[in-house]
Formats: sequence, C-alpha cells, structure tokens
Amino acid sequence: MKKTNPNPRFTRLVAMLLAAGATCACLAPQALAQQEGRRRRAAAESKPVEITAEQSAMLTKIANDRKLNVDDLLAAAKTYTPSGRHDDYVLFSSGGQSGQIFAIGVPSMRLLRSIAVFTPESWQGYGFAGDDDPVRKRLEINGKPVLWGDTHHPALSETAGDYDGQFLFIGDKANARLGVIDLRDWETKQIVKNPLTVSDHGAAFVTPNTDYVIEGGQYATVLGYGYAPPEEYKKSYRGMVTMWKFDRSKGRIDESQSFAIELPPYWQDLADAGKLASDGYFFVNSFNAEMATGGVEKGNPPFEAGASKRDMDYLHIVDWKKAEAAFKAGKVKKINGFSVIMLDTSVSEGILYFAPEPKSPHGVDVTPNGQYMVVAGKLDPHVTVYSIEKVKKAIAEKKFSGKDDYGVPVLDFDAVKEVQVELGLGPLHTQFDNKGYAYTSLFLDSAVARWSLGGEYASLHAEQPWKLVTKTPVQYNIGHLCAAEGDTVSPDGNYLISMSKWSVDRFLCTGPLLPQNFQLLDISQGGTTMPVTYDLPIGVGEPHYCQMIKADKLKSWPVYPEVGWNPHTQMLDPNAPKKGEEGITREGNKVLVKMTALRSHFTPEHVEINEGDVVTWRISANETAQDATHGFCIGGYNVNLSLEPGEFSEFTFTADKPGTYPYYCTEFCSALHLEMMGYLHIKPKAGVSVKPTETTAAQK
Amino acid sequence: MKKTNPNPRFTRLVAMLLAAGATCACLAPQALAQQEGRRRRAAAESKPVEITAEQSAMLTKIANDRKLNVDDLLAAAKTYTPSGRHDDYVLFSSGGQSGQIFAIGVPSMRLLRSIAVFTPESWQGYGFAGDDDPVRKRLEINGKPVLWGDTHHPALSETAGDYDGQFLFIGDKANARLGVIDLRDWETKQIVKNPLTVSDHGAAFVTPNTDYVIEGGQYATVLGYGYAPPEEYKKSYRGMVTMWKFDRSKGRIDESQSFAIELPPYWQDLADAGKLASDGYFFVNSFNAEMATGGVEKGNPPFEAGASKRDMDYLHIVDWKKAEAAFKAGKVKKINGFSVIMLDTSVSEGILYFAPEPKSPHGVDVTPNGQYMVVAGKLDPHVTVYSIEKVKKAIAEKKFSGKDDYGVPVLDFDAVKEVQVELGLGPLHTQFDNKGYAYTSLFLDSAVARWSLGGEYASLHAEQPWKLVTKTPVQYNIGHLCAAEGDTVSPDGNYLISMSKWSVDRFLCTGPLLPQNFQLLDISQGGTTMPVTYDLPIGVGEPHYCQMIKADKLKSWPVYPEVGWNPHTQMLDPNAPKKGEEGITREGNKVLVKMTALRSHFTPEHVEINEGDVVTWRISANETAQDATHGFCIGGYNVNLSLEPGEFSEFTFTADKPGTYPYYCTEFCSALHLEMMGYLHIKPKAGVSVKPTETTAAQK
Repeated sequence: MKKTNPNPRFTRLVAMLLAAGATCACLAPQALAQQEGRRRRAAAESKPVEITAEQSAMLTKIANDRKLNVDDLLAAAKTYTPSGRHDDYVLFSSGGQSGQIFAIGVPSMRLLRSIAVFTPESWQGYGFAGDDDPVRKRLEINGKPVLWGDTHHPALSETAGDYDGQFLFIGDKANARLGVIDLRDWETKQIVKNPLTVSDHGAAFVTPNTDYVIEGGQYATVLGYGYAPPEEYKKSYRGMVTMWKFDRSKGRIDESQSFAIELPPYWQDLADAGKLASDGYFFVNSFNAEMATGGVEKGNPPFEAGASKRDMDYLHIVDWKKAEAAFKAGKVKKINGFSVIMLDTSVSEGILYFAPEPKSPHGVDVTPNGQYMVVAGKLDPHVTVYSIEKVKKAIAEKKFSGKDDYGVPVLDFDAVKEVQVELGLGPLHTQFDNKGYAYTSLFLDSAVARWSLGGEYASLHAEQPWKLVTKTPVQYNIGHLCAAEGDTVSPDGNYLISMSKWSVDRFLCTGPLLPQNFQLLDISQGGTTMPVTYDLPIGVGEPHYCQMIKADKLKSWPVYPEVGWNPHTQMLDPNAPKKGEEGITREGNKVLVKMTALRSHFTPEHVEINEGDVVTWRISANETAQDATHGFCIGGYNVNLSLEPGEFSEFTFTADKPGTYPYYCTEFCSALHLEMMGYLHIKPKAGVSVKPTETTAAQK
Repeated sequence: MKKTNPNPRFTRLVAMLLAAGATCACLAPQALAQQEGRRRRAAAESKPVEITAEQSAMLTKIANDRKLNVDDLLAAAKTYTPSGRHDDYVLFSSGGQSGQIFAIGVPSMRLLRSIAVFTPESWQGYGFAGDDDPVRKRLEINGKPVLWGDTHHPALSETAGDYDGQFLFIGDKANARLGVIDLRDWETKQIVKNPLTVSDHGAAFVTPNTDYVIEGGQYATVLGYGYAPPEEYKKSYRGMVTMWKFDRSKGRIDESQSFAIELPPYWQDLADAGKLASDGYFFVNSFNAEMATGGVEKGNPPFEAGASKRDMDYLHIVDWKKAEAAFKAGKVKKINGFSVIMLDTSVSEGILYFAPEPKSPHGVDVTPNGQYMVVAGKLDPHVTVYSIEKVKKAIAEKKFSGKDDYGVPVLDFDAVKEVQVELGLGPLHTQFDNKGYAYTSLFLDSAVARWSLGGEYASLHAEQPWKLVTKTPVQYNIGHLCAAEGDTVSPDGNYLISMSKWSVDRFLCTGPLLPQNFQLLDISQGGTTMPVTYDLPIGVGEPHYCQMIKADKLKSWPVYPEVGWNPHTQMLDPNAPKKGEEGITREGNKVLVKMTALRSHFTPEHVEINEGDVVTWRISANETAQDATHGFCIGGYNVNLSLEPGEFSEFTFTADKPGTYPYYCTEFCSALHLEMMGYLHIKPKAGVSVKPTETTAAQK
C-alpha cells in the first residue's frame, strides 16, 4: 500500500513520547495538577466574593430554569465542593451486605472509594490473585469460602477517646468476623473469625485507646458452632461479647490475647465503650429478653411479636478491666479453642451487671464526657439516660431489683436512671455535637430529633436540659445517624448524616431494587435550625452505620514508601523483582516469573510455559508518581491485580488450560496504555491437538 | 425481677404495630413520600425565585466561609438537585475492572446504583444463591469460574438509531464476554462468552435497530482458544469481530444466529455502527497494523514502541448486511463450534474494506446523520473525518491504494477522507451535540476540544466548518467522553462527561489507590463557553466508557409485576411458594423448603434438617410496596439473596456443616427488621459429637 503521511507532526510526537521514556505521558498532568491546584486555591482565597447584580441575575435565571428555591441555593452553596477542593471530613460507612466500607467526602457527599473487606472486589485486585490468594484463604470459614459479609459498624481507632486516623475496624454480622484496615494504604490487613458464634451484630467498637475491639453478638446460638434444637433454647443457646486485643505496633488483632464473655441468650445488639467518667466499662444492649423462639409455622407468635412482649430488656454493663484480669488469671473455659469467661465467673467477679432498659433497644451511646449512657428503645417513644455515677453507686450499694434467669444481678432501674426524654416514635441511635445537643434517629417518625443534654452540658446551650428541641423530617425511615466525630470525647458538630433506609420516590427509579438515602443535615446552628442540605443515593449496598473523621487526621500514603512494597506485610518484600532481574526460571514443572511494570510496558512481554506447570508470578510496579497505578490481568484465568505505585504482588496458578492468553494493564495509565500487554503461551502437552490454525486464511 | 414499665405508651405502640399487621411500619413512609414529593414540587414550581438582598448576603457569607467564587456558585446552582427532585439523565457507565455497570444521575452526578454483571455482588444477591447459582454457572469459562470482568463499552438498545430505554449491553474486555441487562428491572439476564477469543475490546455497540450487538476484538490470538508461539504471529494469530444476534422479543442474544468475521491480527479497537446515511455498515478501528510482537525481554522494542511505528493503521469498513447474507448462505467455517466468515470470503463477497487511518486510533464515531466517520488517532494531533458517500463511491470505483498482507483491499486515503481537523495532543474519542459541534477528548492535552462540523451541520453554528472552537482543561488525562444521547441520531447537547483517568490531588488522598474523576461540562451554550461544573470521584473501578440517556425514556418497574416473579425468566414462577403453602418436605435426603417473606417475618422461622441433606430452598417475597425489599442470608453458608417486592428466588446447597445457624433479613425493612430471622438447625449425623453445651452455665 501507499505510505501516506498527511501529518508530519506524527513522527515528531511519537519520537518525543518514546524518547522521553515511559513516564513522559504522565509528567505533564502531574505538573498540571500542581499548577491547577495552586491556581484554584489562589483564586478562591485571594479575594472575598461579592455577588454583583448581574451575577445575582444569572443565579436567579439558573434557579428558575431548574426550579430551585432559595433554600436550595443555600444548600448548594453549603455542599458544593469545586474542582480540586478537598472535603473537610471523611465518612467511613459500612457497606452493609456488600461486605465493604465506603469512604464519602463531607460536605460534598461524594463517594471517594470503596474498601474491599469481606467481598472479593476485582478492581482493587482483592481476592483475584490466583489459586492461593491469601485474601480468599482468610475468608474461609470451616474450610469453605464465605465470600461476602454484612458489614455493620465501622470503628475508627482512638487515642484517649479521640479518633487518631490510624486504623479502621468493621464487623461482618452475617458471619461473625472482624476486619482490620490500615488507613495508611486503605487496605484490609486482617480478618478474624469469631470461633464461638455464627453471626454477630455489635462489631466493631473500640475502647478509648484501642486496647480492645469489642464484638457484641446478636442471635444466640450454641457457642462454638454447636447444634441444639429450638426446644433447648434456654438451656443450650447463649449470647457472647468478644474482646479482641489489638496490637497497635503490629496493626493486627492478637487472637491469643483475646477472649469472650458468655452471656444469656438474649439477643445482644449495639455496644459502646465507656470513656472518661465511664472508662473501664462498656455497654451492650439486648432485645428478646423474652427468649422467644418464634415458630410462626406452628401457630406460635413470630419473633417480631414474641420478642416484643416485655416492657424491659437488659442493658449489659461490663467492667472490662475486671474481665481482662479474670482472663489473665485463667478464669476461663475454652470453647472451640477460644477463651470464654463463663456466666458464673462474670457474676462472681463482678464483671457483668444488668440494668432494665425499655424496649427492644438498638443503640446505647455514651456522651462525650462519659457520664451518661443513652439508650434508644425502638418501641419506646423516649430515650432513657443512665448515669455512670449512679451505676457505680448502685453496684457498690447492691441496689438490685433481682437477678435474671441466669443469675446476673439486675440493677434497680430508678437507681441508675438519670432521666427519660420523650422524642417520638422509633428511636434508634444517638450522636452528639459540640454544643450540648444530642441527636437521635426516629425510624417510625422518619425524623432526626435534636435534644438538649443536661448536667455539665446545660451551660452550652440555651435550652432547658433534657428536652426535645426540634425534629427535622428525613426521607425515609432513618436507621443510624452520624455526627462529625460524634462518638468521640470531642465532637465537632457541623454535619450530621441521616442514614435513611428507604428512598422510595426520592431518586429516579432504578428498577425494583432502590438505593438507600444518606441525607446531610447542617447542624452548625443551634435551636430549631437543622435543614437537610443534601440527599445521596447509596446504590451499592445498605450501609448500616458510619463514623465521620476530620480529614486532616488521616495521614494516608500517596504512594507506597518504597518500590517493592508488600501491602500484606507492610514492608519491603525481598522477593520483589528489581529492574534487570526480570525473567522466567524453571525447576521441574515449577515456574517462577519475575516481572516489572513501568509505563507503558511489562517486562517480559512473552511468558512461554507448558501445560501443567505450576506458576509463581511476581510483579513489582516500578512507579513512584502518585496515581500511577497499573492493573494486571490474564484473560480467562480469573486473575486481576491492582498494582499501585511501588506495590509488589504475587500470585500462583496451575497452567491447566493450554492456549495463548493476552495479559494486559487494566488501569488506564498513559497514552500507550493499550500497548501495555503481553502474551502468556501455555504450550499443550504432546499428543494434545492444538486448534488448527489452517482454518484461517493463510498470510499472503 | 421487678416488672418496670415507666412508659405506658409502650404497650399501646407495640399493640398498634403488631395489630396493624406486617406492613404498618412502612405504610407511613409511603404516604409521606408522596406528600413530601408533592410539597416539594409544588413549592418549587409555584413561584419564581427572586433573590432578596438579605438572601444574597447569606449566599455571600456561605461562599466566603467556604472560599467559593461566583463561578462555583453558578456551577452549584447548575448541578445541585434538591431532596426528592429527579435527575434529567441517567449515565450508564462501565465499571471497568469492577466488572459492573454504574448508573449515575445527571446533572447531580450522584451514583444511583451499581448493576452487577460479571462480578458476584452480595448486596444484590448476585452470585450468592448457593452451590448451583445460575449466575456463577454462567460466569464459568471452560468449566472454571471467572468471577470478574473488565467492562468497557455499555450500549443502550436503539430503535431507529435512538435509545429506546429497553436493554443495555456491555462487554468484558478481559474475557471476551457480553452481558445483557433488562432495564425493566436493571438485572443482568444473560452472559455470552465469545468462543473464538480470550479477550476483546470493542464491545458492545448496537446496530440502529439492535438487530445485532457488535463485539470488536483487541489482542489477536489463535481463534478458538488455540495455542501458537509468538514466532507464528502473522501466520496463526487473528483478530475478529462478532455479530451477536439480539432477539428483542425474548430479551436475549440468539447465539445460533450469531457469527463472527475473521480479521487480520491487527489489534482491533472501538467500533461504531453506521446509521441513516451509513446504515448497513459498521466501522472498527485497529492499531498495531505493524503486527509487532514486542519482546522487550529479548532486546526487542516493547509493544508500546513497536506498535507505534507506522503512520497509518486500518479503519475496518464492514458491510454487515452482506456479512449477514454470507452467514445465512452458509459461507462460514466453524471454529470452536462458532460460525466464522473467513477473510477470503469477506474479500470475495465485498464484506470488508480498509481505509488508512492515522495513527494508533482509539475511537471511530459516526456523526448523528450518519454521513461522517470521525477517527481519533491518539498519536496524531488531528481527527480524520471520512465521508460515507466517498467510501461508497471509492468501493464502487475500486479506488484502492493496494491490499494489506491478507488480501483486503485498502481504499485510497484521499478518496475517502473528507477533512482533517487539528485539535491537539492525544485525541481519543468523539461525541456530538444538537448544535453542530463535535467534542473530542485529548488525553495528552488533558482537555475536551469542541470543534465545528461541516456539511449539513454548518448552518447550526456560527463557526467556520471543521475548525477547533475551544478547549476546556480537565483534571486529568481524559479517556472517553460522553454527551447526552451523544451517539444517537438525535443528540441532546446540555451535558458532557469527561472520563478523566487520573485524579492525582483533586480529591482527598485515599491511599495509593485513587479514584478516577468524572467531570461534568456544561455544553448548553455554544462558542467558547464550556465550563466544568462538577467533579465526581469514581472510587469503585476505572470506568471506560458510558452512555447518557434521557431519564424519561426508562420505563423501569418499581416492583415486580406479580408476587412470585422469577427475574431469570421474567415471568411468574410456578414454583414460587404462596402464602399458606410454606413448609418443609423431604424425599430421602432431598429437602424442599418453601418460605415466604413479609414484613417482618419469614415463614417458617425454624428449618430442621439433617447433616448431609441436599436442600432446595424457595422464597417468595410477598411484598407489593415500592422499596419493600428484604434480604435473606444464612450465616456461614455463603448465601445472600436480595428479595425485591414480588421476587421469587431459589437456591440449593448441601447441609454439610452441622450446627444451628441463624438466617435473617439483610435489608432494613421495618422497625422490627432485626426480629425478621429464623434458625436453620442441621442435626449432626449419629455418632458425630455435638459441641457440649454443658460447658456453658446451666440455666437457673
């Protein structure tokens, strides 16, 4: 054919691209980034805005064209976060039955990232590193893969009761597991499986210095994965709460130093650790103190009725320092290999007390000063506030109203109650601000209630103490809520998230499966002003709970500290191939591939092996620029890696399917990204016929 | 203990909840929804906004507090979408290596929902229905699970070249698969695996009436999953393009009526179907016409250099109506059981022609009137515009500049070229608006170029035809772009999405793995005005391509049409248990569980079976209210279902792990949601010891 070159700039451009080396294509954007960032910040910070009449007219026209009212414009101004500007807070939200965590910027309410925890997620390369992927291995339960979770309660690590931005924990309700995320690289480092129970609920909650991560239970079972028929419920079923010991220096839970506390077969629910005045205690709610066993199929009342008969359930008050001492003194039994403080020990050692709590409560939340525990009984229109001082006094003075069926002392309700505040229908969960207000979600009212705290908080606001101040309707049926740093010793106020469970008609119809609705409330002003300023559909799972941290507390790594870094060990990996070490070596049928990835090619570009080979494949991403991530996949082989700058990754597989397979970079990395590929040639065993290439047209 | 009842309203409230039946807890929100929606709409539409001086001062204060400038306020007003207001457009975006599709509302840029396609996703219950889950089965390749995909090009079904809102198709580049989504319920209904090739790229693109879904290839391999060493590249490797026949009445691809066209081993890339003037043709780009085989490890130029040497690659021009005729006439060979029109047939039947195209092109995009094909060669600063009229004429007049190495006629470049327009560095992909403009992404310039079309479009704008009009910088390195209905016969203009590949410092640092950046551009005005109005981090995968449809074209089901609906078959399922039919039956070790789910209980609440039983479990969600979704999981058994209103679901498993397992609803459905649970009791085989319950404290 005729060689046509209508554009002589081609050759120059390509020569420039290639001569400047692999990174050239992206140097420009990096520089541009800084330039643009500086420009924007300078523009924004240099001169105060004054809206001219002409600009006001433009705004008015847009508002009328889009049918916005002035409240909408104000809300837009409060939440809109311009190109390049960072959010003030990060909301770490459970992903519910997605098994993951979602990080959302506040106030823009933009989903910044998902973090894979219990469910393999290919774009992060989580669980897609071949046959022996350590992620898939650690997701096994009793030797079988359980490749999802129902994440409920994320918990940020704390120092002295304040978020320190270092670690994040989250529980898997469905399978009673706990995940540990390192916030330097936002990756899940560890998953522990509770050996006692099938499912849980109240995980995770940390003690004020993150000595322990608390995992409360939910549906009672036979501890240790045992079996018992429903008739033996009271005799054989038990609840539990587990204290997972966290080793901050290693960034891992130390299972050998962890233990559980046996509990009666009430259904334990949320937990919260004491702090300051209540440091050393934690609190766990329960429902189904009725010990109903359902059986609607036999004409019994269903659980929903049977578990809602009594007026009172039991707030569990646990002296965890005494529990720790009992564990260290060996006052435990082993169940399924795990140390358990049995009920009689808890009673005799003064570890466990109950207080009556109305009624089928969900949240128990400790005020920032640690003095009060707020219980929201979902079938009671009040929140009930307990005083830790009164609790301690009642314990000391043995002010009991009796014992429960399992011998646990029940504190006298009136002796430990500070006050009850009537809020509305279906209270679930309470958060706090910096102005002496508490915020409680009302599921049935579909509202957020602001109410005034008493005691030493009374001076912070202008209201009568312990009173409902206002309610803001939310759409619809709020479950949990989350204020900025709202469960630390020093809440920030400013923002509150309503985790609204139903969206119904709030967003475009996405078929029969609809998103949830995270609504942002502006709580920066006191009194009755508390507008909803943003609705965010959550169409990636049903988040259960979240925590909001000031963004500048996070000290995340923009790239891995050194090239050849292994995120599983958080250190340089001696096996990481260096530039110049690439190649393929063989011992018998064991093949070792050493590869590097650098814009825009893999080295090597051909890997020729034999059918049946067992392959170990090691890749170093030799990039050091922020965002210079590569992917690596082998078509048809269920392998996909995410190779972040500096990351080392390894996978193994058995080459059991002969053929010629492209591998390629799955993350758009440069203008020559599509050329970042190679071929894996798996030569068939002798005697195995290869697909005849003769059926295709012969090359001319 | 003392029965304490401090709040007499308890009993009434609970009685009310239970007496009103299972649905009471959520009737209120439904009514509230309508009420609130009406209120908002009425408020917004009744009176035009006039911003008072006081309101202007409030806006100014917020702007200054948040360091917003007036452009920011205008952008906020253009994008902010108040609580309850619906977006105008839905952007269906590939999810890249996540394997999924993301639906995003425009202009609010809120992620409405993910749609699971190639990767199991537990919150949707996709791939978590037990041992024989049909989703997992259809994700197998050569008998092995490949549980992820690299989704690249979503394609909405079209009628007469316009989106009709009925179906959505998407390709899996990594594994050469195609997914079919029904937009009535937003669920993946079918996945077809290309039997010829390991990976692809240019999928999916539809013909104007969705007769066929086009799957272009990418990295040449030995067709039919064969093997050949790199030395045999030219002889044995081949590209392909596959025409998947779509049966609209069944909502399924008909594999028996589908066929492929063999192509030379250039790396085929994007495809686009002709329309109107070019109806009956489709176009496929290619790069690596050099047939470079890389080998950097042997001192060869890497693919990135070797595949970028020549000034011209080949635009593939396919007369698909002739191809269809050849297929129907049996002029095919079978490769791996699939019909393939071989290269010599394509040449002899006049099915395939090439035109030279500069240089390593990515996108080929047909103008709305079908008259022009725009090719963006990523290493050429121009876009090259071809005329279909000239192409037809050149074919008729045999204006060839030669043949390629495989005998395909190459049309004379000057005979088919309409014009070249210089835009800048790294052009990739082009979209169109309703004002006679085209928009091309410039990867290296990191900008969106607006340029003027000529021909019959020249009268729509005030510019010289075929000229660059303006560029808007984007942050950073745009890949594809998408204008509202921008690849139909009638684009809307208004909005354009820049799929920016790098975000670097634009958002809070999320560790070494950063989000992409979808940027919204306001293209409603002509000329040089084209501001970025929103930045959306995409931290759930690296989306490759998207399409934007007017929201009112979607006729999605808010709930399934009838209770007992099977989404796999899209009809009422005869096996769906009806109310009153619930129960457990047994034949030998085969157990059938029939269950219903209705707020807030499952019937039955206990399922007692034996170790080793093979269980079929059927559940009907007897809900009819929008958003009344339930989940169903069995802890530790890797089962999670999403039971949308009316949905029937079935799963099977072998009860190989004895014990007592809670099952529960995983979607917050009412105030008594936590009580929506039951127990699966798997009785151990005789002789197998049960965990001793005696280690726990005996009930007093």
